[in-house]
Amino acid sequence: MQLSKLGEFGLIRKIRSIIKTDSSVIKGSGDDCAVLRLDRANYQLFCCDMLIEGVDFKPTDDPYLIGRKAIAISLSDIAACGGIPRYCLVSVGISPKKTLVFFQDLLRGMLDIAKRYRMNLVGGDLTRSDKLIIDVSILGKVEKKNLLLRSGAKTGDIIFVTGTLGGSIFRKHLEFIPRIKEARFLVRNFKINSMIDISDGLVQDLSHILEESKRGAIIYEELIPLSKEARDLEDALYSGEDFELLFTVSISEAKKIYRKKIKLFKPIGEIVDKNYGLRLIDKQGKTKIIKIKGFRHF
Amino acid sequence: MQLSKLGEFGLIRKIRSIIKTDSSVIKGSGDDCAVLRLDRANYQLFCCDMLIEGVDFKPTDDPYLIGRKAIAISLSDIAACGGIPRYCLVSVGISPKKTLVFFQDLLRGMLDIAKRYRMNLVGGDLTRSDKLIIDVSILGKVEKKNLLLRSGAKTGDIIFVTGTLGGSIFRKHLEFIPRIKEARFLVRNFKINSMIDISDGLVQDLSHILEESKRGAIIYEELIPLSKEARDLEDALYSGEDFELLFTVSISEAKKIYRKKIKLFKPIGEIVDKNYGLRLIDKQGKTKIIKIKGFRHF
Repeated sequence: MQLSKLGEFGLIRKIRSIIKTDSSVIKGSGDDCAVLRLDRANYQLFCCDMLIEGVDFKPTDDPYLIGRKAIAISLSDIAACGGIPRYCLVSVGISPKKTLVFFQDLLRGMLDIAKRYRMNLVGGDLTRSDKLIIDVSILGKVEKKNLLLRSGAKTGDIIFVTGTLGGSIFRKHLEFIPRIKEARFLVRNFKINSMIDISDGLVQDLSHILEESKRGAIIYEELIPLSKEARDLEDALYSGEDFELLFTVSISEAKKIYRKKIKLFKPIGEIVDKNYGLRLIDKQGKTKIIKIKGFRHF
Repeated sequence: MQLSKLGEFGLIRKIRSIIKTDSSVIKGSGDDCAVLRLDRANYQLFCCDMLIEGVDFKPTDDPYLIGRKAIAISLSDIAACGGIPRYCLVSVGISPKKTLVFFQDLLRGMLDIAKRYRMNLVGGDLTRSDKLIIDVSILGKVEKKNLLLRSGAKTGDIIFVTGTLGGSIFRKHLEFIPRIKEARFLVRNFKINSMIDISDGLVQDLSHILEESKRGAIIYEELIPLSKEARDLEDALYSGEDFELLFTVSISEAKKIYRKKIKLFKPIGEIVDKNYGLRLIDKQGKTKIIKIKGFRHF
């Protein structure tokens, strides 16, 4: 059987069923970061993301923005767990025909965003490759009480997203702000039950929360914040690389968040029992069962 | 200027001159692992290595051995710092046309060697790619007193290598034993001054020790342990991917090691002052100045 037939998430499920870890691993594969034992008060977060020319960026994209994106997508994983990034390693596969100026721009893009979040670039690996490949792994930490996973959503929770959704392909995927500061603000001020970053589309990433939390959800078309670049609702529901956060909180916490009047945090629906599945209430008040799909590598 | 003109190590020097890190980074880029503050008694080790089809393995190689190698080369970096591997992440770029059986073999190769060294595979990333790409990052630790760097070689030190050198391309590069156990035996029983793994050839990796330690070296042709597969001395001096360890110790420690009669550890020369450069005494007793070269990606 070819991998394309199994699909990306089918393959991930298969991998997860095979891998065993020891008791120092609080959470292995299956969340935005691996969560590891560290000390009495903190966990260590460990995550990686690979970018490939022609898949995650175009050969003609600005190397500064490519470097920036490579770091930013892993920062977004640290944010999704409520954590603080500390160290990163970068493996780069690059053609010897590329210029030093190109490489320096790439590196500057990485270093500028790393510095902004006080993260140290501590090393890496260089390899010859026709296509540009960048793999970034980040080591971070999070206070035990602030760790956020996909599995904590509860029936009755309100679902929030940060920012706006859809149309990221036109520009935002290269320039998005990893929501580290927003995530830290949330974990320090509210009781958040679950969180994920929206990397493969709202519906697909919400479905990960539902699967891990064994819940269902209802979302409201009129509440979904479309970006200026989104062509339609479909785009906000299914297109990838928004890199916004999706989180769920109890109604009482939702009220507290609402009272703060922070425009960035927008309620879009609620968590319900698992047997409801995932439903959308459209602008006419009609209920639709949503098919779970989004960006998949295969 | 193209990267090919600057060369791999020229580029690395340039990168190192740009990157700044905070005081929690004991050693950033420029050694086998990044060394990070952890707790009172230990440092954390953090390293990565990228493998690309057509560069590091052939498309026709056994996927089990490709997976094994991907993990083993990073384990070798942990060994070179005297440490213990604990956790790894794996990013894989793979064609959707590959079969599930191929992927399972690849994963089995990774998991078998990870298990052997009690390392947890805690997650990763999957991406679509025409060529198979694997990037592994490992998190390990080492007792502060046992940390080994490239920079500790002292004038008068004896230079040792483990195992035999040369001809790795014929088979060993896919099946080598990462020298974790040997490195741990060494750091627990002797005072080792410096260590590196031989990934780009004996001469090139020894030259990294000399550069970081600001020293020179004399090595003896008759002492260099050629593997069965090595075609000649050149092969043992310059061909890459032996993944043996090279370490230096004082004469008194060298005697202690020698007395243990462990065949795996072989003296090949001595550390001298920097102005000697790197010299080889051949079997006729003639001294040759050695040109520093070895495997370079560009």
